[in-house]
Amino acid sequence: MSLGEFDIIRRFFATRASRSDVQLGIGDDAAVLNPRTDRKLVLAMDTIGEGVHFLKNTSGYDVGFRALAVNLSDLAAMGAEPSWMSLSLSLPTANAAWLEDFARGLFDLADRYDVQLIGGDTVRGPMVITVQVGGWVECDRWLTRSGAQPGDNVYVTGTLGDASAGLRTLRDRINSTEASFLQQRFLRPEPRIAAGRALRTIASAAMDVSDGLLADAAKLCEASQYGITVDVDALPLSRELRASFDEGDRIAHALSGGDDYELLFTVSVDREQQLASGSVAGVPVTRIGVIESAPGLRCQRGGQPYSPRSTGYDHFAHN
Amino acid sequence: MSLGEFDIIRRFFATRASRSDVQLGIGDDAAVLNPRTDRKLVLAMDTIGEGVHFLKNTSGYDVGFRALAVNLSDLAAMGAEPSWMSLSLSLPTANAAWLEDFARGLFDLADRYDVQLIGGDTVRGPMVITVQVGGWVECDRWLTRSGAQPGDNVYVTGTLGDASAGLRTLRDRINSTEASFLQQRFLRPEPRIAAGRALRTIASAAMDVSDGLLADAAKLCEASQYGITVDVDALPLSRELRASFDEGDRIAHALSGGDDYELLFTVSVDREQQLASGSVAGVPVTRIGVIESAPGLRCQRGGQPYSPRSTGYDHFAHN
Repeated sequence: MSLGEFDIIRRFFATRASRSDVQLGIGDDAAVLNPRTDRKLVLAMDTIGEGVHFLKNTSGYDVGFRALAVNLSDLAAMGAEPSWMSLSLSLPTANAAWLEDFARGLFDLADRYDVQLIGGDTVRGPMVITVQVGGWVECDRWLTRSGAQPGDNVYVTGTLGDASAGLRTLRDRINSTEASFLQQRFLRPEPRIAAGRALRTIASAAMDVSDGLLADAAKLCEASQYGITVDVDALPLSRELRASFDEGDRIAHALSGGDDYELLFTVSVDREQQLASGSVAGVPVTRIGVIESAPGLRCQRGGQPYSPRSTGYDHFAHN
Repeated sequence: MSLGEFDIIRRFFATRASRSDVQLGIGDDAAVLNPRTDRKLVLAMDTIGEGVHFLKNTSGYDVGFRALAVNLSDLAAMGAEPSWMSLSLSLPTANAAWLEDFARGLFDLADRYDVQLIGGDTVRGPMVITVQVGGWVECDRWLTRSGAQPGDNVYVTGTLGDASAGLRTLRDRINSTEASFLQQRFLRPEPRIAAGRALRTIASAAMDVSDGLLADAAKLCEASQYGITVDVDALPLSRELRASFDEGDRIAHALSGGDDYELLFTVSVDREQQLASGSVAGVPVTRIGVIESAPGLRCQRGGQPYSPRSTGYDHFAHN
């Protein structure tokens, strides 16, 4: 089935709910937005490609969901509230059923956060999808990677390693209740928007875990110009991950797997009582390490130095 | 040559000149910007792919230049002033020489308009490049496609058909002074930012000509819910196009060629004296038609109805 470019836009991506900060949405040369005078503007852009970020047989729904989720995760890591998105869709063919499914996945997530599609581009080409998401954060404080201080404790939301383990079970065509949970964690990452909003006034530094805990923790250290020690025994692992993989594999997934889209953040000792409940905005948080003066990334198990199998995920390093 | 993703970002795309409206640029999970209280925010996003928007052997410089130029053209069509960009780069390999050349082309154009790179994504994949550009426009008036009224005259900036003719001569490997001019018009489209800014208070409707005059004029009509008659005899054609193609071909390039990135705009009769000099912000403008109550797109030559060979460019329709 072949559809014209403009038919595609009209049929599947016509504007739905309209926001007061969107003056002119989809359909013109550009969108016009009303800046909020009491907020800073936050913008993120992420790209996903077939065979690199998702498997070739992934459903349109899951691709659409993921394309937005990974972007919302970046806004969560800034403590920002999402507001609108632009979508660039490069597709080899204009398949109506796939597009309908894609749009459903995209908008199911978008509607949950009142994110309006304001424009973008559709072109013929290999399957590569870019979403640019915009939102707002209070002027007095937002989260960055660079605010950590020695002595700050290091936390993560949720559990680590599920998504990467889920990808493994997808590739190995494993069917089980546990595998199904892990696969969902890979296919439909849950952006931690509410946690990010709550952490805005709690965390000293934050980022999302997309390339794997160790790779991302190293970036946080570098931005803060300090070091970190990760306590491997403390890593929060799901029951499903524990049930499906032996200890070596689950630690490898949790440390280096990528695609978790949890938040990694640091908290100064004097703010720690704000995490006393063990959760933020309903999401469990776990202390997994500490920021130290000595630069670099270190792991320990049972109080002893520990060398992980590998570090993180780098698209180009896989060449 | 293979480079890590983060080395790429650091080596070629590190932030240069910083703008006062950019609070936090490249290097974190998202960028943080300072909204202007006296302006509306304008956002556009365009994607270009190898073999669809540029030929396979196009230099990195020309790809980088084009990726931004087509986006700036959208801002020009809104009468907006560009400010920053995000870049998504999907590339099969991380070739340092190509990337350096790409960055040079991108930044040569960006620096001309004081556009700051604030973030984006680099992934391994087929060559697909998306740029998202942001800028500002005065709160009282900006340009859209939908403001035209019956009786308004229709104008274009510059000349039409050069880019598409240039692509033809590139494909046919023609070397001549004229071909070189036409090829430059294809390879380095000049966004009409200054003209767009000046037209903000002159034009009743505007858009950029990217898919070909007829295809884009049809969109402008549809947005305004009126019709248009294009006077084919009036089309502004460059000396180089006239010298290189016979009458039938040059009219076809001018009407349907695409990639012109000139501005198509309408002006009410009472504002026409503002175009008396025949130029806007130093760019020649030519009257090519009139808006009419009867919907639809019509062409005429010598006062008689004229049927063009084909209409415009639609990526997916080429399948």
